[in-house]
Amino acid sequence: MLSTTPTFSDIKRTHQRISKYIFETPVLTSANLDKVAGCNVFFKCENFQKVGAFKMRGAANKIFAYRPEERMSGFACHSSGNHGQAVAMAARLAGSKAYVVMPKNTTKPKIDAVVSYGAEVVLCEPNEGARSETCKKIANETGAIQVHPFDDYEIIAGQGTAAKELIEQIENLDAIVIPVGGGGLAAGTALVAHYIDPLLDIYLSEPKEVDDTYQSLRAGKIIPNKTANTIADGLRTTIGEKNFEVLKEHVEDCFTVTEEEIISAMKLVYERMKIVIEPSCAVPFAALLKNKENFSGKNVGIILTGGNVDLSKLPF
Amino acid sequence: MLSTTPTFSDIKRTHQRISKYIFETPVLTSANLDKVAGCNVFFKCENFQKVGAFKMRGAANKIFAYRPEERMSGFACHSSGNHGQAVAMAARLAGSKAYVVMPKNTTKPKIDAVVSYGAEVVLCEPNEGARSETCKKIANETGAIQVHPFDDYEIIAGQGTAAKELIEQIENLDAIVIPVGGGGLAAGTALVAHYIDPLLDIYLSEPKEVDDTYQSLRAGKIIPNKTANTIADGLRTTIGEKNFEVLKEHVEDCFTVTEEEIISAMKLVYERMKIVIEPSCAVPFAALLKNKENFSGKNVGIILTGGNVDLSKLPF
Repeated sequence: MLSTTPTFSDIKRTHQRISKYIFETPVLTSANLDKVAGCNVFFKCENFQKVGAFKMRGAANKIFAYRPEERMSGFACHSSGNHGQAVAMAARLAGSKAYVVMPKNTTKPKIDAVVSYGAEVVLCEPNEGARSETCKKIANETGAIQVHPFDDYEIIAGQGTAAKELIEQIENLDAIVIPVGGGGLAAGTALVAHYIDPLLDIYLSEPKEVDDTYQSLRAGKIIPNKTANTIADGLRTTIGEKNFEVLKEHVEDCFTVTEEEIISAMKLVYERMKIVIEPSCAVPFAALLKNKENFSGKNVGIILTGGNVDLSKLPF
Repeated sequence: MLSTTPTFSDIKRTHQRISKYIFETPVLTSANLDKVAGCNVFFKCENFQKVGAFKMRGAANKIFAYRPEERMSGFACHSSGNHGQAVAMAARLAGSKAYVVMPKNTTKPKIDAVVSYGAEVVLCEPNEGARSETCKKIANETGAIQVHPFDDYEIIAGQGTAAKELIEQIENLDAIVIPVGGGGLAAGTALVAHYIDPLLDIYLSEPKEVDDTYQSLRAGKIIPNKTANTIADGLRTTIGEKNFEVLKEHVEDCFTVTEEEIISAMKLVYERMKIVIEPSCAVPFAALLKNKENFSGKNVGIILTGGNVDLSKLPF
């Protein structure tokens, strides 16, 4: 189990370990959106990943990093979204039991998805304290291993494989723009870029409403979010400690975008690219459109993080 | 200009001619939907095609089949949908003028799309007679060449290139299921399969509400639709004559599906595959799900015909 920041060898080993449990997702382009953005945009479609999100990479890596005899008592996590689905699916592939703690107010389709992957769902009060306590209690009672959604080196290494694939698929990228919530994908991407091509610029993006990473990078220490008031539900979390340590070193800048900018970018992707993405996915593209001068004429990668969205409640 | 049913050489020449004006669209799969369908489904994503629909193939072929000096007076068509966009785009690529006749009740986004491709839109009364008369009048006045949406050998050859690509991309297909409206795609696909692999079964599919092809194949002559009462707006047209001649010879069967089955299949594709498709696209997948016994364990191709849909009016 990794106890320090993953090296490039660690990430390569991670990629080998999880390759049979994940898809190598396609990279799509749109001449139309290139024109709108003023640069060449390469969309890495993790919305097509297993369980519909990049979270499958980290969860698979964490779970398969344990030896079969260590996996016997199963895995536990708390999540109202993609991390829970990913842990459920990865545990099933490993032949292990999964316990997913979800707040009572989680919508039925989200609970059903986790159950359909064979996990046991445990409902709790809808607050951070109840979630982590319930998860800890299950771990104590059952011996299940807790899987943190982002503040974990195995998770960071797993999420980094999305950028590794993107860089292998598309030569001559000048920059990658990614959304940042807890920072698993962000830290993994920043490390991979640093190892493979130090000249490749990594830009973070987050909703203005939950700009903890923007604030934290400026303050030099973690400044927690005060609200969770954004449509980009995957990005409401405050940045993790291990994640922040990496981002401090290896990112160019962090852009923030308004709710309107997120919705407008999301609509553009649906209309022009004909693909289904979550609001969180639209944040980096919104940031790119807002900061065109940074990317003019360049080759820019964007990781579309997931496609699990309630289609009856699209914001447009 | 082709005056008889396209041969395989004709279709190969067509593919060469249009290759720089179209995308080779990707083929996507979903382990999840394979389980639901009981077979291996290969979705050919023409919703990612230029202008968002396979219609670009036929329009590009028709327009580039003319010599530059013949293209000087431009092209005219009538369409409330994808054919109009395709003719507009192909004409622009050819440096020609396009006139697109659209019924007065066409929604603004559809008109805007055609205008954005540089065509001149001419509005007319919303009935078939007014549409074709207006188009003929423009052709007479301007010398523009009329581009029929389906009952034309160049169009049939162009649409056939989608199946040609699919067969080249995926080895060992056992069947292809396609929607049928006017029959451009259907006839092109049936011909290509016949030429490349006569053992490859071609199944047609259409909404029960507009089952003209189903009826016509049984009667041995064209039986026009009596209503246009289906959500699958691309399939409301009655089959064309040249198209029917091909389909009579080369298809296995024609399935019909209800409106509920169309909507349910459409939702599955959005939710599980994370892609945006038009209702017409969902018809072949609905037909496959309704007739699973015909496809059990087989490799089945489905051509997703387009992704131009009003996202604010999804039927689920």
